[in-house]
Amino acid sequence: MSDRPHTPLLDQVNTPADLKQFSDVQLTQLAHEVRAETISVVSETGGHLGAGLGVVELTVALHAVFDAPKDKIIWDVSHQCYPHKILTGRRDRMRTLRQKDGVSGFTKRSESPYDPFGAAHSSTSISAALGFAVARDLGGACDTGHGDAIAVIGDGAMSAGMAFEALNNAGHLKKRLIVVLNDNEMSIAPPVGAFSSYLSRLYAGEPFQELKAAAKGAVSLLPEPFKEGAKRAKDMLKGMAVGGTMFEELGFSYVGPIDGHDMEQLLPVLRTVQERATGPILIHITTKKGKGYAPAENARDGGHATGKFDVLTGAQKKSPSNAPSYTKVFSEALLDHAAKDDKICAVTAAMPDGTGLDLFEKRYPSRCFDVGIAEQHAVTFAAGLAAGGLRPFCALYSTFLQRGYDQVVHDVAIQRLPVRFAIDRAGLVGADGATHAGSFDTAFLANLPGMVVMAAADEAELVHMVATAAAHDNGPIAFRYPRGEGQGVDMPEVGEVLEIGKGRIVREGAKVAILSFGTRLGEVLKASESLSARGISPTVADARFAKPLDENLILDLVETHDALITIEEGAVGGFGSHVSQLLADHGVFDHGFKFRSMVLPDIFIDQANPEDMYSVAALNASDIEAKVLDILGVSQLSDKRA
Amino acid sequence: MSDRPHTPLLDQVNTPADLKQFSDVQLTQLAHEVRAETISVVSETGGHLGAGLGVVELTVALHAVFDAPKDKIIWDVSHQCYPHKILTGRRDRMRTLRQKDGVSGFTKRSESPYDPFGAAHSSTSISAALGFAVARDLGGACDTGHGDAIAVIGDGAMSAGMAFEALNNAGHLKKRLIVVLNDNEMSIAPPVGAFSSYLSRLYAGEPFQELKAAAKGAVSLLPEPFKEGAKRAKDMLKGMAVGGTMFEELGFSYVGPIDGHDMEQLLPVLRTVQERATGPILIHITTKKGKGYAPAENARDGGHATGKFDVLTGAQKKSPSNAPSYTKVFSEALLDHAAKDDKICAVTAAMPDGTGLDLFEKRYPSRCFDVGIAEQHAVTFAAGLAAGGLRPFCALYSTFLQRGYDQVVHDVAIQRLPVRFAIDRAGLVGADGATHAGSFDTAFLANLPGMVVMAAADEAELVHMVATAAAHDNGPIAFRYPRGEGQGVDMPEVGEVLEIGKGRIVREGAKVAILSFGTRLGEVLKASESLSARGISPTVADARFAKPLDENLILDLVETHDALITIEEGAVGGFGSHVSQLLADHGVFDHGFKFRSMVLPDIFIDQANPEDMYSVAALNASDIEAKVLDILGVSQLSDKRA
Repeated sequence: MSDRPHTPLLDQVNTPADLKQFSDVQLTQLAHEVRAETISVVSETGGHLGAGLGVVELTVALHAVFDAPKDKIIWDVSHQCYPHKILTGRRDRMRTLRQKDGVSGFTKRSESPYDPFGAAHSSTSISAALGFAVARDLGGACDTGHGDAIAVIGDGAMSAGMAFEALNNAGHLKKRLIVVLNDNEMSIAPPVGAFSSYLSRLYAGEPFQELKAAAKGAVSLLPEPFKEGAKRAKDMLKGMAVGGTMFEELGFSYVGPIDGHDMEQLLPVLRTVQERATGPILIHITTKKGKGYAPAENARDGGHATGKFDVLTGAQKKSPSNAPSYTKVFSEALLDHAAKDDKICAVTAAMPDGTGLDLFEKRYPSRCFDVGIAEQHAVTFAAGLAAGGLRPFCALYSTFLQRGYDQVVHDVAIQRLPVRFAIDRAGLVGADGATHAGSFDTAFLANLPGMVVMAAADEAELVHMVATAAAHDNGPIAFRYPRGEGQGVDMPEVGEVLEIGKGRIVREGAKVAILSFGTRLGEVLKASESLSARGISPTVADARFAKPLDENLILDLVETHDALITIEEGAVGGFGSHVSQLLADHGVFDHGFKFRSMVLPDIFIDQANPEDMYSVAALNASDIEAKVLDILGVSQLSDKRA
Repeated sequence: MSDRPHTPLLDQVNTPADLKQFSDVQLTQLAHEVRAETISVVSETGGHLGAGLGVVELTVALHAVFDAPKDKIIWDVSHQCYPHKILTGRRDRMRTLRQKDGVSGFTKRSESPYDPFGAAHSSTSISAALGFAVARDLGGACDTGHGDAIAVIGDGAMSAGMAFEALNNAGHLKKRLIVVLNDNEMSIAPPVGAFSSYLSRLYAGEPFQELKAAAKGAVSLLPEPFKEGAKRAKDMLKGMAVGGTMFEELGFSYVGPIDGHDMEQLLPVLRTVQERATGPILIHITTKKGKGYAPAENARDGGHATGKFDVLTGAQKKSPSNAPSYTKVFSEALLDHAAKDDKICAVTAAMPDGTGLDLFEKRYPSRCFDVGIAEQHAVTFAAGLAAGGLRPFCALYSTFLQRGYDQVVHDVAIQRLPVRFAIDRAGLVGADGATHAGSFDTAFLANLPGMVVMAAADEAELVHMVATAAAHDNGPIAFRYPRGEGQGVDMPEVGEVLEIGKGRIVREGAKVAILSFGTRLGEVLKASESLSARGISPTVADARFAKPLDENLILDLVETHDALITIEEGAVGGFGSHVSQLLADHGVFDHGFKFRSMVLPDIFIDQANPEDMYSVAALNASDIEAKVLDILGVSQLSDKRA
């Protein structure tokens, strides 16, 4: 550990209360130490680096001025929470970050009383903080007591409608509530949208030097305890407001923009707000994502997320892989189709890199739409594109699609509009943990009338499914695929348009049939190999479609086998439930038939590496093997059981 | 039909093209006729009256100036579409409004090429219109051609985050796009939120008389064909803009506010916009919900929705019912608990009347929160209230809960926060049709770890479930109940706290057991009566809980019967699927067991009266009886089959 940073002040901090002993100069020094510690931690663990580096000074200043956990500091999305965790009693465990049984990469109520409201998806913090503010004023019983409610939200997150809804409600309720708008001109990707331009204009409205001078003036005032009272403080704040009309129109007092890396601006402003705020107030600070670490500052995404890296050079330590990621496979397959068909267009909600649409954006900028963090709009906008005669692919992570569910039901499914949903990060996702697991999409899509729902068994299948979606003009279609690398299978020259609702037999066998939906197919085949050694040879089929089901295939399997096992990387209510409904309707169970449906268990699975998560979920080859042996009534070695 | 209004001009209109023949004075007269016709129609059919009356002039003006269906006029929510339907070839069918096989109460793509994008939930119109605008500019193939994309959206709908997301994206893309903000200071309920105050200030910024004069000046200019060109038109529009900073900051040109009932203002402004607009433009009009019909104008909700009524007096013709509505039962039960427990609070998203929280709002105004049309915020705000130590009831319609699904998953379920979801309008809803059917909530909630999901079998059960939810402090809980009146059962003095995950036997029988989840229980009992006459006596149980399942009860029923039928008013993936998963896991099917799951069919069921809808869904007593006979292999009269 000789290369750990020198952190004499930070070493004295066990809880935020310890910050009260420091002078402003020491707090500035503390911020430097927290930054160094953050970089050191993430270099060992990987994780979200840039966002945390951008709020080091803000984190120190908030904890110096406010009293957590009585005061509720709510980090929006919480990618940026590592400095906060370092200062709130978790420093010694930070190097277990995002690992099994380790510190979460996000704020988490169950992890610490200093995390009053967990997060992972954006734009929830103002709503939650408003809830705390109201609960405080109505005498709600809170273990940690009640103080200020403070939401820290980025400019990207502020572009989501939900944040607007919360501002609108907060401005109406007029409770004391503090919103810190952390304007780094960046969400995960560079920001888009008119609102972002608006913030830029606010930022540009006043030269930074003047602001800084004004704030320094404020510092010199502070030792004198606000003799002129509320009016003077208010005037000072008003004077700093160079814009902010939109927020003021919504009922917020507005202060800013403030240089969020300058403790001499942050501390006095936060102290004044803490002393004087009555209703809702928005403090607009400008920061730089990745601040203070050149490799992050210089990256296009501000060093958003990283693997382990070398602190000196910033070089990633990640080992190169052989198979392409599913995201890349989707991206390239879509480009192939777009080259041949100028009606194909693409929609992403602030995730051009994560969804692989960055390539599409470069090649076909006029046909690629990054709508910002705005999944509700993304889905209905795509529906409008489809109604207008284009062929939109709406590429979202499974969990983010949850944000646009009503729009999928109303604007797409009821109207039978041919929107193609490319659902990335379907299933378990590893280090991001439960909040990012795509567990529910099959269930919530497959019961929508007219929806076609596919899952790719491997990267070659994904290529076929992109082709199938591109060709599917008479209604909505969705295909899901997981995070991470493919199986390393041979790739087809061109994608083949699959027959809608037709699965395929992958391996002919007898007695027991395993019908897989999605990428668990690899584990099914492994289990089948292993079972062969015991003289059991399962038939293996790839359903491809959860909707419409391949009824003939399924009923044939029933006819010719003693048992059927379905497997999917999704919660109950999805593929297996549809199969079960089919079997019951056909009276398959009436006279005896062995059926089991392997699904994700009824728990939110915490972060771990994917293998461990699958083990918790009991969806590995050994679990499948055990299920087959159990269903066939074959005795098995106890160590083979899940 | 002697009391039908005299409509000499309207009688000449078959399609909007026929409006081109009329002078401006005639168009004003036409508007009067459309208003009279609308009132006449709704007096016979019932339906949404106030919103349509508010946009009579706008509708006439839009169709006079623009060229539908080439130009896409998209009505947000589309409660207000009756005048539009009257003018677009559907006048002769309007008196079938909201009836089986009749004209839909909403816009509907499958009904008419003049409905380019259907709606029913609010705030989707700008997203959809932007999709059309982009598709137009990218050469999308549209049957009706491509022209202008025009979204008409109310001030209430504009407060939803989704509208903000769309404005933000539209301002960024800078396509020609027309948004008409129909500001009636009303959503369904009177409006709430800071944004609404903002609009009021815009409205108040200029005396109406001056505006009117300015607009009349514009009219006199019009015969001269804009000699001074674009600049002059722009100046004129600019001159009329008395506010609108927020929209301008988002990249829109802003015109308004305009008196939306004055054709002499509307026509010239729309014509100028039509001739001159380049990028996105927002036209702010002010209207009165229920305009021109005193009983509607004077109602608190502007005559939002009505049954059949007498045109002269406005008196409703609805026959009084004996049983209270589920909504009322919920509302009163909640009041009882709130009287005893000051931690109980309530959240509604712009539906205080529809959810019954209007009573709560009156009695406990400081504990009732109408957050506006903002379901995402509503859910997370409720989560914040719970985290802050209150006991929030979040009362939403089933379909509107779809708008906050991700927030239910992340902010409530993952954090195990005790938010109580009161889910009204669960199941089929009659005249509002497919868009308002609450079909999916059981499926999308019951697979969330830690969620408790109940359905009330009758209004007495609902009282118990409110009590159960009030007492449930260690995690989220949801209870669903349908639209309409209860069964007329005896009501309990006080609600009883049910044991979580325990169902009840309602009727002891033999051979076949029917396990009901929700209000189909009444039909199950009817079917059982009828079956008794044939010597078949089913056991009937009320599951109460879809999650956690009453495993003991279910496995006992399996043990003691030859067959089990589940029934629910929800799509596959819900209660029956969870039961099926349990049975499969326990090997119940291995040696033969008759199981059927009766669910909503895999179609979107169009409007009809509830009985007809249940008949389509095959969930009536006769369908249950047929299912029992079928599963028992008893021959039945063919007329008994569904």
